[in-house]
Amino acid sequence: MPAPVHPSQTTVAWIGTGVMGAAMCGHVLKAGYRVSVHTRTPAKAQPLLGQGAAWAESLRAAADRADIVVTMVGFPRDVRDVYLAPDGILAGARPGSILIDMTTTEPSLSREIAAAASAKGLSAIDAPVSGGDVGAKHATLSIMVGGDRRTVEVVRPLLACLGRKIVYQGPAGAGQHTKLCNQIVIAGTMAGVCESLLYGYRAGLDLHQMLESIRGGAAACWTLDHLAPRMLQRNFDPGFFVEHFVKDMGIALEETARMGLTLPGLTLVHGLYQRVEALGHGRSGTHALLLALEDLSGMTDSST
Amino acid sequence: MPAPVHPSQTTVAWIGTGVMGAAMCGHVLKAGYRVSVHTRTPAKAQPLLGQGAAWAESLRAAADRADIVVTMVGFPRDVRDVYLAPDGILAGARPGSILIDMTTTEPSLSREIAAAASAKGLSAIDAPVSGGDVGAKHATLSIMVGGDRRTVEVVRPLLACLGRKIVYQGPAGAGQHTKLCNQIVIAGTMAGVCESLLYGYRAGLDLHQMLESIRGGAAACWTLDHLAPRMLQRNFDPGFFVEHFVKDMGIALEETARMGLTLPGLTLVHGLYQRVEALGHGRSGTHALLLALEDLSGMTDSST
Repeated sequence: MPAPVHPSQTTVAWIGTGVMGAAMCGHVLKAGYRVSVHTRTPAKAQPLLGQGAAWAESLRAAADRADIVVTMVGFPRDVRDVYLAPDGILAGARPGSILIDMTTTEPSLSREIAAAASAKGLSAIDAPVSGGDVGAKHATLSIMVGGDRRTVEVVRPLLACLGRKIVYQGPAGAGQHTKLCNQIVIAGTMAGVCESLLYGYRAGLDLHQMLESIRGGAAACWTLDHLAPRMLQRNFDPGFFVEHFVKDMGIALEETARMGLTLPGLTLVHGLYQRVEALGHGRSGTHALLLALEDLSGMTDSST
Repeated sequence: MPAPVHPSQTTVAWIGTGVMGAAMCGHVLKAGYRVSVHTRTPAKAQPLLGQGAAWAESLRAAADRADIVVTMVGFPRDVRDVYLAPDGILAGARPGSILIDMTTTEPSLSREIAAAASAKGLSAIDAPVSGGDVGAKHATLSIMVGGDRRTVEVVRPLLACLGRKIVYQGPAGAGQHTKLCNQIVIAGTMAGVCESLLYGYRAGLDLHQMLESIRGGAAACWTLDHLAPRMLQRNFDPGFFVEHFVKDMGIALEETARMGLTLPGLTLVHGLYQRVEALGHGRSGTHALLLALEDLSGMTDSST
């Protein structure tokens, strides 16, 4: 395991340059790390190359030259592929390097990768994030970290470029479990905010004034502050993709089934989001839940 | 309608001294208003008498000497009684006085009281609040106001003793509609927070660390900050009574039925709270929703 060294002497391989990953990788570049990027759609890496990143032709090539490998991809199957496929990160990484998966994925997969990494003399940690596109852009993410505690301390300076709250949660998979806790809260708040806007619209309220009132009391939440205004503008751009949120809630529901736990709110909201996908909004932002609820009441547009 | 005058020259009749009302009335006294109190259970008014309030033997007696009458009672039936009964506030109030109902009640009842008040030369506004016992104690409530706009401006200095956000929402009943929007958001956030804690408990997380992580990201909400810690301590004292929240959600569901609106999240949470009541927790705080969810999964105690 490398001792903490100056960013300019540390090579980071960055895998995955979607909405979140691209913004996050930019902060790592700005902090002075040597970064090589690989991603499935090379065009998406272009802006990062302009900021000084090198392009790596393959996962193996990226991992081979890196002290730290960071992944921020889409689905558990992508995580499995980039780490465990024959030409994946575990096949290419140098002994002693540290692998950080920041994707939200199955806790069991994080444990599997950590074990496989350990068997090869590598250290893998799970470090999913919350804070959305806003948090990625402003480096104000909350980062929930699971894995070997000493390894986490070695990469803490890197994580500190990306977020303002980095909390160690326990062994491999604990970061993922914490992120699922986070998503369960968001499922509830999103449903509450969307239903509240529909109620206010039908009640004839000025929704901007209504929001001004309720943001100040016990209903205060991040969703009201950051997503309700986008809903009023009918701007359903991501942010955070519906299809990723459906994935996260699906993982949480599989875990709860395994735990013998009944979470009726999460179950309901997961079903509503499947309706959002059926309406063709899988690649919209999570606040497109409003559209499924409008649809449920036979409304076409509740903007003012 | 009285012009705004110095608090010491304004007599306020305060009706209702429950958890919220008692704290709020204390701020009015501290601001220098002359206050007379009447409430169904005189013992609850005792601390306010010690702070300088006078006791009024009846609603009529309280209203008869007041420039402003404030009500903070429990249920719509109580609101109807204190305003509209033969020996109620409307029977006793002096022409020109202003009546402020801060109870959460039916928007239609607020409109009915405003019309009945107007017919007697009185002005009635609806001004329900959010922010719970914490907000009442620290005078940081959000106050959502409906009714005649000029009347609202006359009593704004009084409302400013109680809250830090006072927003005019529209004609009579608009304050109530806004409060119902607020409760709909809270229904969602409360379900999300409770389900998240159960998930984290079953996943074996340190719940304090988990909360530390998720409070910093897109799951951030008032309920996480103020009620989740009480849940971890198994402290289900009110706060805000379950039975009052059930009442509020019931009003919102009646309104949505009238509007032809389907709100599945609110419907679900309302049902879960009826389970909380069935478990004997109607007079616990709203965060006792955790107990119904534990019960649903056959758990008896999810504290760490």
